[in-house]
Amino acid sequence: MNIASRIRTVHDVDRHHKHLKWSKKQAPVLTVSSGDVVTFDALDSSNGQITVDSDTSALDSFRLDLADPAFGPVYVRNAEPGDALKIDIIALETGDWGWTAVVPGFGLLADDFADSVLKIWRFDSASGFAELKSGVRVPVRPFLGIMGIAPGADGEFSTIPPTEVGGNIDCRDLVVGSTLYLPVQVAGALFSCGDGHAAQGQGEVCGTAIETPMKATVRLSVCKNHPWVQSPHLLLPPPPPAPFPTVDKGRYATMGLDSDLLEATRKAARFMIDWLVSTKGLTRNEAYILTSVAADLKMAEVVDMPNFAVTMSIPLNIFD
Amino acid sequence: MNIASRIRTVHDVDRHHKHLKWSKKQAPVLTVSSGDVVTFDALDSSNGQITVDSDTSALDSFRLDLADPAFGPVYVRNAEPGDALKIDIIALETGDWGWTAVVPGFGLLADDFADSVLKIWRFDSASGFAELKSGVRVPVRPFLGIMGIAPGADGEFSTIPPTEVGGNIDCRDLVVGSTLYLPVQVAGALFSCGDGHAAQGQGEVCGTAIETPMKATVRLSVCKNHPWVQSPHLLLPPPPPAPFPTVDKGRYATMGLDSDLLEATRKAARFMIDWLVSTKGLTRNEAYILTSVAADLKMAEVVDMPNFAVTMSIPLNIFD
Repeated sequence: MNIASRIRTVHDVDRHHKHLKWSKKQAPVLTVSSGDVVTFDALDSSNGQITVDSDTSALDSFRLDLADPAFGPVYVRNAEPGDALKIDIIALETGDWGWTAVVPGFGLLADDFADSVLKIWRFDSASGFAELKSGVRVPVRPFLGIMGIAPGADGEFSTIPPTEVGGNIDCRDLVVGSTLYLPVQVAGALFSCGDGHAAQGQGEVCGTAIETPMKATVRLSVCKNHPWVQSPHLLLPPPPPAPFPTVDKGRYATMGLDSDLLEATRKAARFMIDWLVSTKGLTRNEAYILTSVAADLKMAEVVDMPNFAVTMSIPLNIFD
Repeated sequence: MNIASRIRTVHDVDRHHKHLKWSKKQAPVLTVSSGDVVTFDALDSSNGQITVDSDTSALDSFRLDLADPAFGPVYVRNAEPGDALKIDIIALETGDWGWTAVVPGFGLLADDFADSVLKIWRFDSASGFAELKSGVRVPVRPFLGIMGIAPGADGEFSTIPPTEVGGNIDCRDLVVGSTLYLPVQVAGALFSCGDGHAAQGQGEVCGTAIETPMKATVRLSVCKNHPWVQSPHLLLPPPPPAPFPTVDKGRYATMGLDSDLLEATRKAARFMIDWLVSTKGLTRNEAYILTSVAADLKMAEVVDMPNFAVTMSIPLNIFD
């Protein structure tokens, strides 16, 4: 089927139409009808502070208050509080570069990693992967870290934490072909997005993915009878045939066990980093970055009190 | 390759060789050499208290102190503290029935579910699934909930919580073809297993899987140079072709967001249960049971402070 034939109207939101706070008072930059398609030209999550030529010194002057811009908002006609806004992910186009940073004080293992690190990745659509170093390649699997709508509450809210109306949910499942539902709290919904990620593991443990500028095309539709959508809901397509590498070699996983779920999570990540350093010749910083962009956190069990069991797993075909 | 040709020696542990505490003083029921294969005939996690003919009244007299028996232990020659014990999962054979229970005071959503429920499942290897009710079928994917070795610490420890030497890790990834590594803390390792599960989601949220008797065949090997194995490590094969249903229809997911990771997890499960009740015609208890045996908890992000984002997803091909 020709996707274009299904598109009613295409609108554009450019990279100047951005905001750094969620607010129901944010003036819309565009008004569309339910079913319309909008393309967003989103800067990366550094808001242009990091470029392909940056080195670690760029982190010294990094302004966190400029980070995680959201592009929009878009007012969707007929969206009312109590409705769900349906966002179909139609197309995601990354640039040919991205970055991952370890920032002191930030990330799941902030207590373990004291130094600033900036990794610049180069990739292209032909190869389908980004190389960490010789012999270690991360498949490119783009998605938007930020998709959200305006909260009903009064005030201005940072774009960094996600909430029940979405925002910086950093959910790597939301690739092209996926659908996100969000609970509308204000008239028009006021949808914005940004924070392009070329790749990320479940958890984004070091605090950054492969951050990249992104052109994103989504369809915005109003759903009138979805009362169960009280938080982000996701409809996920079957996984596409693996673009790279074609051979599935299985996964390696480490398990963290603790009576505190967050500490169990930290342990799983620490054990994975130890394993990567011990067996794959990575530095600890390289290993931390790799877990953030390619390893997945899952819960084996959350019921066998007093200990929770969390796994971190990584696909083995990213290694030579 | 003929698996039999790789098997050096086959031993058996029968269903009478069980224990309800982990202890380095537990007398071994069998001594084997590294590389030997052992078959365990494991009762279900109720220790035979629940049968295919049981109804919910069986939970009234259920003795928790008899639950989660481990079968063994097996002494592995040459295993010393500091080594890793490698457990290759060679074969897992369930019976033709299993059970799932909601037990008041137990499970991730203990505060939400007040009543005892017992579901008896029937299944067979030909169909490859267990039916919750007409139109809702859970694929059978057997694994052992308990695989563990003796802790180095003095004392006796319940078999219910898992620890860094394994035990009740309830990790659904450990299907046939998988390998588990555990950090040896006592001479001989003292391996035991049990708690057969015909199916379970990541998290086992209601506290029970499809619990079933299981004949399990594993190879036990000593690894002398795996210092990174300080907790359970897993080597997981590529997923087999889906036995049932053959059509992958993708997944539906709900997201929980909270500044407490465990509460974010609870929210994800609650939203999934709401969705199952609203759109699939399940009762709340049926939905809770279904999430426990077929839905997966993953962490979208654990870094965008102050809020964590956890997803629960369920495969859509389990529904007609």
